[in-house]
Amino acid sequence: MTSVKHMKWWGWGVDGVGFHYEDKPGFAPFVLQAVGLDLLTAERAGEPAFADLKVPKSNATAAFTKTLAGIVGADNVSTDDMLRVIHTYGKSLRDLVRIRGNMIKRSPDVVVYPADEAEVQQVVDAAVAANAVIIPFGGGSNIASSLEPLPEEKRTIVSLDLGRLRKVIDIDADSGLARIEAGAQGPDLEEQLNKQGWTIGHFPDSFTHSTVGGWVATRSSGMQSDKYGDIADIARGLRVVRPGGVLVLRPLPSTSSGPSVREMILGSEGRLGVITEVTVQVHRVPAKRDVYAYFFPNWKSGIAAMQEISESDAAPSITRISDARETGFSLATSKDRKGFDKFLAGTVLPGLMKSKGWTLEDICLSFIGYEGSVSHAKRQKKLVDAIVKKHGGMGVGTGPGILYDQKKFDTPYLRDFLLDMGAAGDVSETAAPWSKLVALHEAVYAAANKAYDEIGIKGWIMSHLSHSYHSGACLYFTFAFVFDKDPIGEYDRVKSAIQQAFVDNHGTISHHHGVGLEHAPWLEQDISVEGVKVMRGLVGAADPKKNFNPGKIFAD
Amino acid sequence: MTSVKHMKWWGWGVDGVGFHYEDKPGFAPFVLQAVGLDLLTAERAGEPAFADLKVPKSNATAAFTKTLAGIVGADNVSTDDMLRVIHTYGKSLRDLVRIRGNMIKRSPDVVVYPADEAEVQQVVDAAVAANAVIIPFGGGSNIASSLEPLPEEKRTIVSLDLGRLRKVIDIDADSGLARIEAGAQGPDLEEQLNKQGWTIGHFPDSFTHSTVGGWVATRSSGMQSDKYGDIADIARGLRVVRPGGVLVLRPLPSTSSGPSVREMILGSEGRLGVITEVTVQVHRVPAKRDVYAYFFPNWKSGIAAMQEISESDAAPSITRISDARETGFSLATSKDRKGFDKFLAGTVLPGLMKSKGWTLEDICLSFIGYEGSVSHAKRQKKLVDAIVKKHGGMGVGTGPGILYDQKKFDTPYLRDFLLDMGAAGDVSETAAPWSKLVALHEAVYAAANKAYDEIGIKGWIMSHLSHSYHSGACLYFTFAFVFDKDPIGEYDRVKSAIQQAFVDNHGTISHHHGVGLEHAPWLEQDISVEGVKVMRGLVGAADPKKNFNPGKIFAD
Repeated sequence: MTSVKHMKWWGWGVDGVGFHYEDKPGFAPFVLQAVGLDLLTAERAGEPAFADLKVPKSNATAAFTKTLAGIVGADNVSTDDMLRVIHTYGKSLRDLVRIRGNMIKRSPDVVVYPADEAEVQQVVDAAVAANAVIIPFGGGSNIASSLEPLPEEKRTIVSLDLGRLRKVIDIDADSGLARIEAGAQGPDLEEQLNKQGWTIGHFPDSFTHSTVGGWVATRSSGMQSDKYGDIADIARGLRVVRPGGVLVLRPLPSTSSGPSVREMILGSEGRLGVITEVTVQVHRVPAKRDVYAYFFPNWKSGIAAMQEISESDAAPSITRISDARETGFSLATSKDRKGFDKFLAGTVLPGLMKSKGWTLEDICLSFIGYEGSVSHAKRQKKLVDAIVKKHGGMGVGTGPGILYDQKKFDTPYLRDFLLDMGAAGDVSETAAPWSKLVALHEAVYAAANKAYDEIGIKGWIMSHLSHSYHSGACLYFTFAFVFDKDPIGEYDRVKSAIQQAFVDNHGTISHHHGVGLEHAPWLEQDISVEGVKVMRGLVGAADPKKNFNPGKIFAD
Repeated sequence: MTSVKHMKWWGWGVDGVGFHYEDKPGFAPFVLQAVGLDLLTAERAGEPAFADLKVPKSNATAAFTKTLAGIVGADNVSTDDMLRVIHTYGKSLRDLVRIRGNMIKRSPDVVVYPADEAEVQQVVDAAVAANAVIIPFGGGSNIASSLEPLPEEKRTIVSLDLGRLRKVIDIDADSGLARIEAGAQGPDLEEQLNKQGWTIGHFPDSFTHSTVGGWVATRSSGMQSDKYGDIADIARGLRVVRPGGVLVLRPLPSTSSGPSVREMILGSEGRLGVITEVTVQVHRVPAKRDVYAYFFPNWKSGIAAMQEISESDAAPSITRISDARETGFSLATSKDRKGFDKFLAGTVLPGLMKSKGWTLEDICLSFIGYEGSVSHAKRQKKLVDAIVKKHGGMGVGTGPGILYDQKKFDTPYLRDFLLDMGAAGDVSETAAPWSKLVALHEAVYAAANKAYDEIGIKGWIMSHLSHSYHSGACLYFTFAFVFDKDPIGEYDRVKSAIQQAFVDNHGTISHHHGVGLEHAPWLEQDISVEGVKVMRGLVGAADPKKNFNPGKIFAD
């Protein structure tokens, strides 16, 4: 069997790791207050049993499977139920509800693990010759339903897993460019880079289980994007296997060669071919890397500060601010009230805040990062500190930042825990101009709360700003509620209300999660009817028989 | 008649302005040495006479012209020969040679000047209904043959001039975003922005006669791109008239909504529709803006310094270095040997350089810009100065930088002067990773010199680096020679040799001039056969009847 490691078939991450709150005394009271769920009395579902799952049968013919085995070797092609289930969904809330709820309508018929680009080419050519469907698969962390087969698809569906393509091929030190195979996952590629003194600087929440090819396919963004750019900036060269040949975009710092094909591959979610290699910008590991925490008296002053920072000469690596609700959540879910939390829970800091006339329920926690030489980091902090002060905020040191750094990749585990307890926890994120952010934030809250009211449940929503640009920023919303009768229906109602509020308030349908099936209904409102026509024309011409991940981004 | 002002029909800029060298005593000796042209004895051609020009007749029917007049008013539609000639070409060397040489094979049949987007829509719909060809026209400064009608085109060709759409519509001060009509030319829009304390920060060489719509259509880049970004970064929102409707991309700081339609419009050269409005990032006019000059002992050390600056924490607004030949040219063509030139021509600076062991023939002049607050500019200069010093360079103050700033938009006039004297002067530019730049530079020189040898002429070539990125930079070549027998043939030979050297040495076919007809022959070598297929599919689907500027970027 293949050597490629996968996440749990039913949830995030690896077996044996999960969220627990024994060391977070504020967590249970917080959940009770937020969504009315009493963790002390609620029943917790056990781990789902694979044996109970109804897995659609593979329709791959023996001849086709044999053809694939002839290319990749018998060990690297499989119609095994477990592997097909693993390749059925990503890890969105919808995906997890469906997999737990035994709601698999269609699975890939065969999973194939090519060893290199040449094998990918052969697999693609064989699949296209057989008029099969090809769905490229990286780490499987997608949360926009970009990976699932369409239920109505009658043709053979191949999940093309890039997991064996995981090498950093070479590093051009003079140019700060590294050629990396598309299936390399975050920790794996970063370790290979670090060994030679480099970093990619791209750290999405999914980092531990997502791949560089997947980042490109979904236009991903990482936590330090303010310094290193989004993947659209970082990915300079691409190799994409298409029927009969490889599309090669050499690494270039910039070019004016017509409509950017590089930018067509970015965000293409497998619809234009299979990404096999990405040449990315890499940077020397900085001498200094600090994340400082700040408090603002309220959301508006915090947003205004972030906007002024983005407009200023300061160049922080991270700008992030939680609204009052997310701040409350962060404080409540911290471990064991050591250090910083003790400080905040005590009398000194709250006393200071009150003396400034702050309302403790309104305070917003912000993280701002500084990277580079020691003097550069110091200077950026000085510039930022002055802006923070001007907007009434105050710095509280690096303690919480260290905590943030440690916790940042753990959040997805919380969702599985909530599902165990019969509750939904999910995210929706957007980006909009600075001038629209406060109103957009209010509109999203109103929309979510209206949806909760209509369902008749007590729901929760919170938000933070991250990824600042000159002209705007990303707003990232997290929402949670206890399922009533119809998990998917209730989820749809809340999620749709939020997405509609995005496009109604100058926001995009997703800043860095892609479109998939999940966000496709709002695409025309996002980029206009003519914009979708142009995009549809591109994909239709590149893949006239719809062999490449059909239905994603827009309905075919 | 229309109120829209145009450049000279036969050359760059406005009537009454041209290059002269009376105040540049080093110019004539330099030209003699470089290309063997003796300006003191050579005959200078007079201004071409329009009456001598053979202008292809307009094939626009009276009915079609009447339809257009019904939309834009009789004053804003014309089949006048002069206006049709003005709209036949851009201002490339090839364009100017052809227009001076009475080589117009095909002209637009009718020129139309809509007043606003609604009129553009009506013109487009009328033209598509009549199966006419539409070629959008901004300032007419294009140098990639993106504006000319194909000689074999039998249909009616409409030059759609955006010259009446020139307003800054509004400025979103909180977001640093300005909505600007596509036909606004550089000085016009910058003046409207400056009045309110803003700048676009985009200053291509063509600035005085190019439009924001044209910048988008060709993926333009300006001199301060290191700070403000290329137009691909600056243009956040777009409106594009397509048959039957407007493609609207709202201004967004970033988005992951599928393959980027924004990036499809960028560089599309009219093939996807008519750009009517661009929402651009704008910045507060900085408190400090300085351009400092530096000298490096040679090209390699200068390139190494630029690379280290780009990798460092320093954030200059301009990084530019001329190679030894361009440095020689700059010194020779300066005015009257006042100030700085006197200094260099004297004994102090050369003496200092010699004492450092420099060879004066190898020295390279560099300009590095600093913008922002006073302390920011000072700090960036300090960081850069340390890197310059490390690579053996030395700073010589702001004197030459002021000169550079004053002269920067005058260069295109020189080309007309050389043509008057029977000589070609033109440019080709590329971008490549840092590690490839020195070899690419050498290869381009070798290729140009080989072409000159084969033609049997004394030719000149010089270069500078500008527009630095993390992973590479733009190399900009200027070449000149005296025509022998066949101006276009000789030009083709030299230009082709240079372009081929670009793609053979890891460079792109153009960093910021677009593709047009001029660079189309190398597109497949630049973005691969599959890349062109994908691009062709996009355009073919968006414009199945080839009504929009057919033949540009790739042959239809």
